[in-house]
Amino acid sequence: MTGFKSQDEFYEAGDRVYLPHLSVDCVIFGFHENSLKVLLLKWKNGPWCLPGGFIKHKESLDQSANRTLKERTGLTEIFLKQFHAFGEPDRENGKRAKGSWIGKRFITVGYYALVEYSKVFPEPDLLSSECKWFDVNAVPDLIYDHNQIMNKALETLRLSLNDHPVGYNLLPEKFTMPQLQKLYETILGETLDRRNFQKQMIALDVLIRLNERKTGGAHKAPYLYRFDKRKYDKAMKQGLRLSF
Amino acid sequence: MTGFKSQDEFYEAGDRVYLPHLSVDCVIFGFHENSLKVLLLKWKNGPWCLPGGFIKHKESLDQSANRTLKERTGLTEIFLKQFHAFGEPDRENGKRAKGSWIGKRFITVGYYALVEYSKVFPEPDLLSSECKWFDVNAVPDLIYDHNQIMNKALETLRLSLNDHPVGYNLLPEKFTMPQLQKLYETILGETLDRRNFQKQMIALDVLIRLNERKTGGAHKAPYLYRFDKRKYDKAMKQGLRLSF
Repeated sequence: MTGFKSQDEFYEAGDRVYLPHLSVDCVIFGFHENSLKVLLLKWKNGPWCLPGGFIKHKESLDQSANRTLKERTGLTEIFLKQFHAFGEPDRENGKRAKGSWIGKRFITVGYYALVEYSKVFPEPDLLSSECKWFDVNAVPDLIYDHNQIMNKALETLRLSLNDHPVGYNLLPEKFTMPQLQKLYETILGETLDRRNFQKQMIALDVLIRLNERKTGGAHKAPYLYRFDKRKYDKAMKQGLRLSF
Repeated sequence: MTGFKSQDEFYEAGDRVYLPHLSVDCVIFGFHENSLKVLLLKWKNGPWCLPGGFIKHKESLDQSANRTLKERTGLTEIFLKQFHAFGEPDRENGKRAKGSWIGKRFITVGYYALVEYSKVFPEPDLLSSECKWFDVNAVPDLIYDHNQIMNKALETLRLSLNDHPVGYNLLPEKFTMPQLQKLYETILGETLDRRNFQKQMIALDVLIRLNERKTGGAHKAPYLYRFDKRKYDKAMKQGLRLSF
């Protein structure tokens, strides 16, 4: 609603600034100490929703998603990845203001990101009363098809573990295999076999085992690892191809 | 252009039938005997392009992609998968009819499919002079950003080999490991190591080795395989998770 004096003016003339029929929605997953959360906004006196917005006439989809996320939650420098466009003709159930450009059908392009949530500090915008992390297993009823959008993003995030390494920026610089396993288990929402996990992770060839063990506590202290950043970046770019 | 008497009428009033600013484009890959091709249309007296079209006011994105593909190429019952929305503000380079709804900016949603191309019989529509398969390595300059859309689809198809099995409907019911390897090599555009390929394919656990060998020719005839359809379908649905 940037640049409009009131909600009425936005309803009346928003399409001078924004393309009709098109929006973006962001699914921001937050990881911290074995829990996976998603960032939601609450409309003032209204339902919870994903942070979303509209596309300016001369703006790319990616720019629009980044600007929207910043305006609605204050978050910047988040690596957003486009994952799916949602275009059922009745996806808003006619719940938006009739008559206005905003009451018409919208196709929304979904973006997602995974961040270390203790490192970002979301703030609600003027339209919203709250901006809050929810456990992915305890998400309330969201507006329109936003639950479906969130679930599709979660599915995409889980499948992405096959394609790309995960963990850089989410784990400490040096970490143990059990910590990495916990990260995968948290994203997948299931328990994994320890030996098999370790074998597969080492086969990905993006880890360096350090000549250090984690100190304190355990009888047999686990080794510390760090990512080989060059190999990690290469795998991010090329994908973790089945190693033919 | 269905339902319009002329191109002029379509330019003038197309937005009564179609949403403004939105289109779909289909990247149809065809596999046959170790070659990978892509289906292109040629505008009458114009450039080559992907088969694409517009979204009716009460139509879902998926319906729109399927209808468009049928209207433009005659192909039906193709499993189209949405892969990316393209939304750079200058992606058409202002090449479309100015003044008309169709001269405005369009965001296009890309779909792709992989078919056995000897089994489908594309036909150009009234707007096009030709509808033809091109080798993916010999695609001409296409309209707008259609080369970029095709390349992104190819990248998605290649990455999808990590997530999903491939081959059912593309290979004969019974096939040899070298035939399956050729399929992967053709899609990936590179040569693979024979032993490693076989090991990885067997590890996917979607193949049944038959008590038959391919007859004729070779000194040591290779075993025949078929897909375990139940496991194949399950892997299509759940993805080929790194086997944790």
